[in-house]
Amino acid sequence: MAGASAGVSETLAAFVAASRWEEMPDLVRHEAKRSLLNCFATAFAGCGDEALEISLASFRDFGATGKASLIGRVERVDPLTAAFINAAAANVHDFDDTHLRTVIHPAAPIAPALLALSETRGVRGQDLLHALALGIEATCRIGNAVSPGHYARGWHITSTCGVFGAALAVGKILGLDADRLVWALGNASAQASGLVETLGFMAKSIGVGGAARGGLLAADLARRGHDGPAAPLEGIRGFLNVTGDAPAMDEVTEGLGSRWEALSNIHKPYPCGIVLNAVIDACLELRDKGLAPVESIASITLLGHPLLRQRADRPDVATGRESQVSAQHAVAITLLRGKPGLAAFTDAAVNDPATLALRGAVRLVDDPDGAVPGVRLVATLKNGTEHEVVVDHARGTDKRPLTDAELEEKFRVLVAEKSPTCGDAEKLIDAIWRLDQSEDAGALLAHARPTVN
Amino acid sequence: MAGASAGVSETLAAFVAASRWEEMPDLVRHEAKRSLLNCFATAFAGCGDEALEISLASFRDFGATGKASLIGRVERVDPLTAAFINAAAANVHDFDDTHLRTVIHPAAPIAPALLALSETRGVRGQDLLHALALGIEATCRIGNAVSPGHYARGWHITSTCGVFGAALAVGKILGLDADRLVWALGNASAQASGLVETLGFMAKSIGVGGAARGGLLAADLARRGHDGPAAPLEGIRGFLNVTGDAPAMDEVTEGLGSRWEALSNIHKPYPCGIVLNAVIDACLELRDKGLAPVESIASITLLGHPLLRQRADRPDVATGRESQVSAQHAVAITLLRGKPGLAAFTDAAVNDPATLALRGAVRLVDDPDGAVPGVRLVATLKNGTEHEVVVDHARGTDKRPLTDAELEEKFRVLVAEKSPTCGDAEKLIDAIWRLDQSEDAGALLAHARPTVN
Repeated sequence: MAGASAGVSETLAAFVAASRWEEMPDLVRHEAKRSLLNCFATAFAGCGDEALEISLASFRDFGATGKASLIGRVERVDPLTAAFINAAAANVHDFDDTHLRTVIHPAAPIAPALLALSETRGVRGQDLLHALALGIEATCRIGNAVSPGHYARGWHITSTCGVFGAALAVGKILGLDADRLVWALGNASAQASGLVETLGFMAKSIGVGGAARGGLLAADLARRGHDGPAAPLEGIRGFLNVTGDAPAMDEVTEGLGSRWEALSNIHKPYPCGIVLNAVIDACLELRDKGLAPVESIASITLLGHPLLRQRADRPDVATGRESQVSAQHAVAITLLRGKPGLAAFTDAAVNDPATLALRGAVRLVDDPDGAVPGVRLVATLKNGTEHEVVVDHARGTDKRPLTDAELEEKFRVLVAEKSPTCGDAEKLIDAIWRLDQSEDAGALLAHARPTVN
Repeated sequence: MAGASAGVSETLAAFVAASRWEEMPDLVRHEAKRSLLNCFATAFAGCGDEALEISLASFRDFGATGKASLIGRVERVDPLTAAFINAAAANVHDFDDTHLRTVIHPAAPIAPALLALSETRGVRGQDLLHALALGIEATCRIGNAVSPGHYARGWHITSTCGVFGAALAVGKILGLDADRLVWALGNASAQASGLVETLGFMAKSIGVGGAARGGLLAADLARRGHDGPAAPLEGIRGFLNVTGDAPAMDEVTEGLGSRWEALSNIHKPYPCGIVLNAVIDACLELRDKGLAPVESIASITLLGHPLLRQRADRPDVATGRESQVSAQHAVAITLLRGKPGLAAFTDAAVNDPATLALRGAVRLVDDPDGAVPGVRLVATLKNGTEHEVVVDHARGTDKRPLTDAELEEKFRVLVAEKSPTCGDAEKLIDAIWRLDQSEDAGALLAHARPTVN
């Protein structure tokens, strides 16, 4: 372990090099499985997205070929391309795991790099989970050091920070020592990219896919002796100073091994902005109780922290993408159709006359005392009756995380909805929960390829 | 052509889409040939560098295979990998073309992307030169918009801006319209990376190689409909605002088609910092005149603009890399050995007792009236005699560019020094000068592969 005078990069690298699976808290180890399960789930959901179809076609025409698997797809490619495509798929709907403080989706750039590696060499399940947990930890800590200015300035933090976590995670499996892990960080630093301006466009997926591919490449290069600077993170012209304003360097290293950022990495229950989780929970409760049939509703009032109104008071959205941050749409689609899946936030859903009509009945009111993630919903019926539902902690926040069973259900729904030809969903779920007992992590991918005749 | 109200990205894209080779000034067209010649020369010089050996081995082990050529090497790979490796080779010694205002080396990220493309489809020589000229122009203008703050902050500007020029250049050959060229810029923006912290390490080459590869990918994706934001350059979270402080947007678009940045893109005569060009010229003149044999020298005084002393007064350098910005070493090695090539800036040259001894006799004195790129050298002999040499405009600056013959000589020396098994240097030189008459630009690469039995 590096001493107190060691630099940030060296300290982080030494921590990763010295880390032992056995010494990691049970909760952190279990969270690695949950992130991996969620990553597979969202990759199944995204694997047929147009952005992926296009980039895969381009890579293949440029000659990508090999034995590496793509989640939910029949094609085989080389490991670098597989890392790119699987990462892009896992993140394309922004439905993957979310580190609350930084809004990083950490698993997408990391897990696919590890999975691709696990098909090229024997990787034990426990080692993949260990590396994933370390990569998530590093990514979120690097993100903490530059937050909130980094994202606010325009950096797509999942991509820019994810490449470092991927490089360290792959490097851990490759058995790199601390010095080579610093080189891996340096090789990653030359590839750290991704702009918020690209969100909402296919171009976003290049950043996320590139982070996974870049991390895998960075570590393999370091293994071969491809060197980098001594302080790729904290150097005066290194990543933290260049992309952060007065970065909090200590965030990277303080409490390494005792405080785990992975424990504030949550899993979204609904494919929309997290701020809407409580709104949807309240609507589901109202709907489940049968107190306010849609045709009887005169108005719906949402009382919440001003942040809710500032971020989500959007009565006039026109596209599926915009609807992901519209409280009006979330209320309408949930009351009409129940628990919202990917289909709830499509152009078709947004422009359905029934949702349009109900949207008009929803208004947001500030409640300065309201808890940020909570909401109070008041449904006023046409006969004058009022029903109130209060949600203090929304499903999918750190106070009320999805249970393992809820995560499994999310997995099953996404597979059924988007990747129904993958016939081994149950085997895959089971294999992920028992991955720490497996001698061959790469075998997971056999369950993730579609069954074809 | 986009109207006055069009955004920066749209205006630049429209300019590229509408540009015609026939309407380009002769000087600009000729400069494209010179940049290409210099790019081949420096790629021959760099093609065996350890960083390249390592990255090529990694790519090949990951499955890179195909028909694309590597300059000076026998291996064949896929076009994306070829773009990466050739770009990294061309830039690894920083001996490629240099845009004076931004210190961008523009050809390295662009020409290799075009050459790789030219092996996958029929590309006329004139079209490759045209695209290269446009890519250089775009790269340098984007660099102007964020200079000098961008590089000062820590961005390796050759990589970060080069990916955009490569994307536009490839897109031009692919026949993309302005809208798709904007997408190409957006796809490039997600990949723009490269940190000054990595300079001096192999990690640097990943940024430059990645820019060429990323530009080729970005344009091919755009061709296939992979969309991006409307304002990837000037958007509030776009490249210029995120990586520049108060970027000068007009620099990208003002005078497009009438003012050419390509004309201030120069070619270095010596593989060291440009600030030393005048010093070396003065030493060569002193040496050629035979006025001051080394053994007779008591002291050498360099009188120059204070910038010369601030940047290059480094009497105690210990490595080849450091010696590239040491006036003391430049004087010693030039007086001892004549015109300095790559071997003059190696660890061995720096630690040669003869250069060490002579270095101690060199001192720098400020001459506030001195021209920035010029120098006045006073050699004081042991017998008291003084000889003075004045260089107002160094060879290789925009006031005294290398002649075509000098560029050819640079090419021949680098091939002979670093890539002697490439047997067709003369054919390649000839083919580049006549490239605008060729129907098959890809044929250039047949002359760039080593002759093997």
